[in-house]
Amino acid sequence: MEGMSVENQQRIVVAVDESEESMHALSWCLTNLISHSSPTTLVLLYVKPPPAIYSSFDLSVHMFSTDVITAVEKYGTDLVNSVMQRAEAVYRSFSKKLNVERVIGSGEAKDVICNAVEKLKPDTLVMGSHGYGFLRKALLGSVSEHCAKRVKCPVVIVKPAHDK
Amino acid sequence: MEGMSVENQQRIVVAVDESEESMHALSWCLTNLISHSSPTTLVLLYVKPPPAIYSSFDLSVHMFSTDVITAVEKYGTDLVNSVMQRAEAVYRSFSKKLNVERVIGSGEAKDVICNAVEKLKPDTLVMGSHGYGFLRKALLGSVSEHCAKRVKCPVVIVKPAHDK
Repeated sequence: MEGMSVENQQRIVVAVDESEESMHALSWCLTNLISHSSPTTLVLLYVKPPPAIYSSFDLSVHMFSTDVITAVEKYGTDLVNSVMQRAEAVYRSFSKKLNVERVIGSGEAKDVICNAVEKLKPDTLVMGSHGYGFLRKALLGSVSEHCAKRVKCPVVIVKPAHDK
Repeated sequence: MEGMSVENQQRIVVAVDESEESMHALSWCLTNLISHSSPTTLVLLYVKPPPAIYSSFDLSVHMFSTDVITAVEKYGTDLVNSVMQRAEAVYRSFSKKLNVERVIGSGEAKDVICNAVEKLKPDTLVMGSHGYGFLRKALLGSVSEHCAKRVKCPVVIVKPAHDK
């Protein structure tokens, strides 16, 4: 019976972003996947958008003053804080005992999420159905599709609430 | 508070087929999605493969004797029974109170599953990641991908156990 306590623990990664959909996915997870009986570690995974503003201007990066770069970096940090605060409001409204971890990645959401899942080896990955963060309308569904295909754990794709 | 009891009930559709993966998906669902507290209706959805043997020989259907047709029909019925019996063995091994319904469809799995979900309006659809039934290697993943895109409820795609 070695390892029983480990067996009973579950670790769930929820990919969160600025979208209402991802908060809905988090709620779904809290309602449906987290039991009162077994201890759960909830990993909130946020992927900062790639710094397109730098990469598009690679050749003229010297054009940016320190102020602009600082402002862009601050914007990134503000986004992280804003998303994590919204997520916290969601999980605090559920009276479930949770160990919450926050993981911040940076880069292409689909790659960062897949790599994070490979490292963290969660029992389940939960994500909204829509694309992730910026340009999500253009990328509709592509991140969740890509991750559902690539990761090895069960994947829950939660559709927007108003779709039902 | 009207409708509270209905709110607390959940209906989960699990797409089952001949594969080990779909039985694993059913086990995952029973372990992770079905609580002891709220009443659950588990709908086992099985889609019989399309009768390719007829459609490929449309012009020469008269070539089949009644015996052959009967044998093919019996084979279909045997498959249904075999899958449902395996599913029953899985859910009986979990001591959870369930209302189990069986729905048998016929045709293209991806269309039949999506249409069934549209009609049954479950809270969640659970399915294996691999293709469905026959030719599942050739169609790897395509049924779950298609359904995850089209249905409006949360979709759980459960990967084969040995993948983790």
